[in-house]
Amino acid sequence: MSDLLFLENFLAMTHFDCDYMSGAHPEVLEAICRYNSIQTSGYGDDSFCDNAKKLIREACGAPDADVQFLAGGTQTNSTVIDAILGRTQGVIAVETGHINVHEAGAIELCGHKVITLPSHDGKMCPSELSAYLRNFFADETWPCMVCPGAVYISFPTELGTIYTLQELESIHNVCKDYGIPLFIDGARLGFGLAASEDVTLKDIARLCEVFYIGGTKMGALFGEAVVCTEPALMPALRSIMKAHGAILAKGRFLGIQFAQLFTDDLYMRIGRNGVERAKELRRAFEEKGYACTIDSPTNQQFFTLPNELIDRILPDVSFEYWGPRGESESMVRFVTSWETTPEDIAALRRIL
Amino acid sequence: MSDLLFLENFLAMTHFDCDYMSGAHPEVLEAICRYNSIQTSGYGDDSFCDNAKKLIREACGAPDADVQFLAGGTQTNSTVIDAILGRTQGVIAVETGHINVHEAGAIELCGHKVITLPSHDGKMCPSELSAYLRNFFADETWPCMVCPGAVYISFPTELGTIYTLQELESIHNVCKDYGIPLFIDGARLGFGLAASEDVTLKDIARLCEVFYIGGTKMGALFGEAVVCTEPALMPALRSIMKAHGAILAKGRFLGIQFAQLFTDDLYMRIGRNGVERAKELRRAFEEKGYACTIDSPTNQQFFTLPNELIDRILPDVSFEYWGPRGESESMVRFVTSWETTPEDIAALRRIL
Amino acid sequence: MSDLLFLENFLAMTHFDCDYMSGAHPEVLEAICRYNSIQTSGYGDDSFCDNAKKLIREACGAPDADVQFLAGGTQTNSTVIDAILGRTQGVIAVETGHINVHEAGAIELCGHKVITLPSHDGKMCPSELSAYLRNFFADETWPCMVCPGAVYISFPTELGTIYTLQELESIHNVCKDYGIPLFIDGARLGFGLAASEDVTLKDIARLCEVFYIGGTKMGALFGEAVVCTEPALMPALRSIMKAHGAILAKGRFLGIQFAQLFTDDLYMRIGRNGVERAKELRRAFEEKGYACTIDSPTNQQFFTLPNELIDRILPDVSFEYWGPRGESESMVRFVTSWETTPEDIAALRRIL
Amino acid sequence: MSDLLFLENFLAMTHFDCDYMSGAHPEVLEAICRYNSIQTSGYGDDSFCDNAKKLIREACGAPDADVQFLAGGTQTNSTVIDAILGRTQGVIAVETGHINVHEAGAIELCGHKVITLPSHDGKMCPSELSAYLRNFFADETWPCMVCPGAVYISFPTELGTIYTLQELESIHNVCKDYGIPLFIDGARLGFGLAASEDVTLKDIARLCEVFYIGGTKMGALFGEAVVCTEPALMPALRSIMKAHGAILAKGRFLGIQFAQLFTDDLYMRIGRNGVERAKELRRAFEEKGYACTIDSPTNQQFFTLPNELIDRILPDVSFEYWGPRGESESMVRFVTSWETTPEDIAALRRIL
Repeated sequence: MSDLLFLENFLAMTHFDCDYMSGAHPEVLEAICRYNSIQTSGYGDDSFCDNAKKLIREACGAPDADVQFLAGGTQTNSTVIDAILGRTQGVIAVETGHINVHEAGAIELCGHKVITLPSHDGKMCPSELSAYLRNFFADETWPCMVCPGAVYISFPTELGTIYTLQELESIHNVCKDYGIPLFIDGARLGFGLAASEDVTLKDIARLCEVFYIGGTKMGALFGEAVVCTEPALMPALRSIMKAHGAILAKGRFLGIQFAQLFTDDLYMRIGRNGVERAKELRRAFEEKGYACTIDSPTNQQFFTLPNELIDRILPDVSFEYWGPRGESESMVRFVTSWETTPEDIAALRRIL
Repeated sequence: MSDLLFLENFLAMTHFDCDYMSGAHPEVLEAICRYNSIQTSGYGDDSFCDNAKKLIREACGAPDADVQFLAGGTQTNSTVIDAILGRTQGVIAVETGHINVHEAGAIELCGHKVITLPSHDGKMCPSELSAYLRNFFADETWPCMVCPGAVYISFPTELGTIYTLQELESIHNVCKDYGIPLFIDGARLGFGLAASEDVTLKDIARLCEVFYIGGTKMGALFGEAVVCTEPALMPALRSIMKAHGAILAKGRFLGIQFAQLFTDDLYMRIGRNGVERAKELRRAFEEKGYACTIDSPTNQQFFTLPNELIDRILPDVSFEYWGPRGESESMVRFVTSWETTPEDIAALRRIL
Repeated sequence: MSDLLFLENFLAMTHFDCDYMSGAHPEVLEAICRYNSIQTSGYGDDSFCDNAKKLIREACGAPDADVQFLAGGTQTNSTVIDAILGRTQGVIAVETGHINVHEAGAIELCGHKVITLPSHDGKMCPSELSAYLRNFFADETWPCMVCPGAVYISFPTELGTIYTLQELESIHNVCKDYGIPLFIDGARLGFGLAASEDVTLKDIARLCEVFYIGGTKMGALFGEAVVCTEPALMPALRSIMKAHGAILAKGRFLGIQFAQLFTDDLYMRIGRNGVERAKELRRAFEEKGYACTIDSPTNQQFFTLPNELIDRILPDVSFEYWGPRGESESMVRFVTSWETTPEDIAALRRIL
Repeated sequence: MSDLLFLENFLAMTHFDCDYMSGAHPEVLEAICRYNSIQTSGYGDDSFCDNAKKLIREACGAPDADVQFLAGGTQTNSTVIDAILGRTQGVIAVETGHINVHEAGAIELCGHKVITLPSHDGKMCPSELSAYLRNFFADETWPCMVCPGAVYISFPTELGTIYTLQELESIHNVCKDYGIPLFIDGARLGFGLAASEDVTLKDIARLCEVFYIGGTKMGALFGEAVVCTEPALMPALRSIMKAHGAILAKGRFLGIQFAQLFTDDLYMRIGRNGVERAKELRRAFEEKGYACTIDSPTNQQFFTLPNELIDRILPDVSFEYWGPRGESESMVRFVTSWETTPEDIAALRRIL
């Protein structure tokens, strides 16, 4: 097949591979273009970034929070965790945590161990965390072991699930008991908030010391906003960002994008669109008799499908393959995004 | 002064602070917008990146080169050097080299020493490099010392100067003699090539093992293109990029920008504009009796000006302050860019 | 209790805490004294080290092996693994592996992840290793994951168990299939070899690329001997040792000790003493009705004892507490060493 | 020449290569033997170490100092500096500083830059240090540069020179002004103190936050004692020591040695012997018309000798070659130690 034919076919497909296949949301792109030719200082020291920080602080109900903009998720996780942890300290995460699986050892590259707890459909169990910490400090040999210096969870998790408000409170309380900061990876935060029945952005800001508001997977061209409600935790953050190559020269474009995402409720509109389309998508599968494998309320949906079905729909729809489950079935992931339309779901329904 | 007044004044000024005060060149921005809504795979595994790589390989006369796209300069230097060097090896640079001064220790953060040689207006002297290497390996205690595993130079240098073809050949030959790869930091490569009387992009590709073609300072929104003519040097490059947080999720926007920069000679048009405006700017100073401090043929121009003059022009023009020189003078830097116009220079001339 | 009284009591006790409570075996100490006043070059570049290397190569049946001497176990594991692994590569170990638990993150400090497999009484299951590697390389996203660059096992394990020859062959074969070097931590190698029915030192040398012969826990004052049958695996080993602070200035004392350990079968005599005393110790417990918790044939013995018994014997015998098991019992570890005598076991038997 | 002949010749020579060619001072070795068979806990948690710490605190006039024992010099420098510095901070040293030259990049391996100042016969100039710090913090771009987090000097220096009390006070004051801790490398501390006219051990303890008392080069088999008068500077020191592989299992032998070195004035007796022999050695050269190259009052003496002379004496005396100086001369280093006797100097005098 020629390149051109391939491209035509690809464009005709409906894509559910991930939430960063397209570019920026039109409102975000429009903002970038509007301010492209204005000159400002570099490195995020400009009024666009100042404005975005102000909007984010307001949305978080955290007037004293430090806000920093970085370019991508792995970079953000690695930089923040490196800035929080003392030398030889480690970070606690569940086994399926992004930092433990899909960041090529970025945390270890900075000298830190990822200490793993069991994953419950992507979530950390507060009582397992509590038990781990209690046993750790009760062990006489703990000075020979990696001391936990931070707890990392994702909201939503890598498997699309979300914590209830009570679960977040519990994890928060365990962390407080041991004086260990909590860091929430919000790469898809908007989808989590849109799906949650009780957790708000203000809750997130209240229940952890640091989190980031994902932009790349939420309609930005690129960019993540780190919010730290206890800036004293990371006194050298800017310098560590620089050494990690995580300060963008033309930094104002991060501010421009986040200011737009936090204008006219755009961030939550994108979140709701992803979640609503995901519900429709799930219903489409369920109507055909395919139950979801993980009970995810967010924009990632997991199914275990007959290989025969997978082969049949592959020419018309793209999605992520997660490996065989038994001899005749496989697990797959479908993801909706800011631009998934009801028509996309209808098209999928037709081919199922 | 209110924020608004400040902004108005700022907009009315002529800016020569650096080459990344504006956004993207209009042709680059137009390309981003044109392809924003097309969906592709992430992480640079898409046809836009493939196309950009093809154009870059052709421009370099290096059909077998590996090309990778990263987001920024410090990230690129740190990632590439980390990928080239063996554990406990160091990289040789001049004292004024960017990696030795202005990257917050990014190289050391990865475990590597920057071994310094004297800077001659930003340039490395081939015979000093040769003498260093000869003495190093003649020293019986060298296994206790940091073994040089790469040589780093900038083209143009941090002080705006450029190497002649013969100087590049000499450094290349010394590196070859000792089997040490040469890495050229081309953050402002286009300005260097536009200013050079004899060095072409193909020469750069021929005379080093790895270099990068700067995008951020050459009209891109962000982005640098690493070109490696000996890919075996960095077998784990992709994995190291990932662990450095240096693989952009929506990677195609790097390909889109570089494809545009290498279409219709845009990259060199930008280079030539910067260099021509810089010549005019220099002439404007010289006509007023202020000779340049460093004989730079590229878009960075350095002057030692009376403090009185500096104070007088500051309301109307912005530039970088490099510190006092004696009691009544100071060194300053003026930088031109893709968008500096003859009118900007004329405005400067009027206020001098 | 006054310090003096404490000391008297301590001296009167029988000690089974660990295998490094005493100093050097008398024959080793005698060798140190004999050669103390002879002058040699430093850093292990002396004829004592040369002689020890020769003896070790002979004992291993590995005439071309590189042998290096380091001071301690954590230092050795960290240095060797850092020398084997490429940047961003990880090392596979079982969850109870020393490098994963009790080295304070020394591996991560060097930038490397410890990838864990289940522990079967301290041992790695060859088929689980095989399955892990097969799945890893079958996963399309593996370039985003930490690539395994070495396999680490202990012989004996941290729980006193040992691999059969067939198990070692199986792990060796899996490693060969994937081209991944095998590193065996032999901190207590002599006890393992003395306990094994089929594994010899030559088998160890044949079935892995690198291992170390523990000295500290086997009668030396300090010291471990790294044996590498494929020196090309670690071309920069000496430099990495230096950077790890792992080259002893008066290095000959490592050679002097290892030469003595490999003279008159001393290393295996020490191994056999530890194993024989451990058998007697185990029998003493079993006769009183306390079965061992882990079926260890080496010098570490694990029991789950009534807390009441523990409290009763504590004034007379010291051992390591491994934590509660239920409400009225606790797990403990008893360790024999080069100097444990039949009288020590008899004394223990009397107080049980 | 056969190995045996070589050995005989080597034994007949007089050795001035370095101060660690022999083993332990007889009094130290005797202490090791005396306590070899007593059993204690490991890792330095024993009464021998407690006793040595007490003696050292008394000798330093620092009753609240934390004292830790490590095995060697590079390990000590790397561990202490890693424990003091924050992430991305660097350590200031002169160009000839041991950490900058002869530790194979151990500091950089831990992620830290060595920031260099000029060396004045091995010494740092207080006013150059002051000027560096003043300029650093005056530079607007300093957040992009490596922030100095410690100052490192050696007493005596790598070139045998020593600071006067006034110079130490000056460096101390500059450090205080900027809130930067001072770390003194005392690998040969006893030789420095024995040679100094005004600096005492108590001054050293008073004028820096951390220093180490070298043992390896001062009559110990191995070992260095870190003294920290502000323990809050390094809260995680023990854990960092463990992760650096710098906690000796049979740690009491470090305590045993240091207790002996600080009994009956042994440490200073060794220091004085080295210094007195060095004076005699220097006089022997001067009488023959060879002036010393560096005016060193300690146990390292540097001369620039005719190559002809070097060749003539080489069969009878060993020393360190430091490279050619012009066509017919070379620089050499002669080192005295705890065991250099007046007879050794007389033998040297005869062959000059």
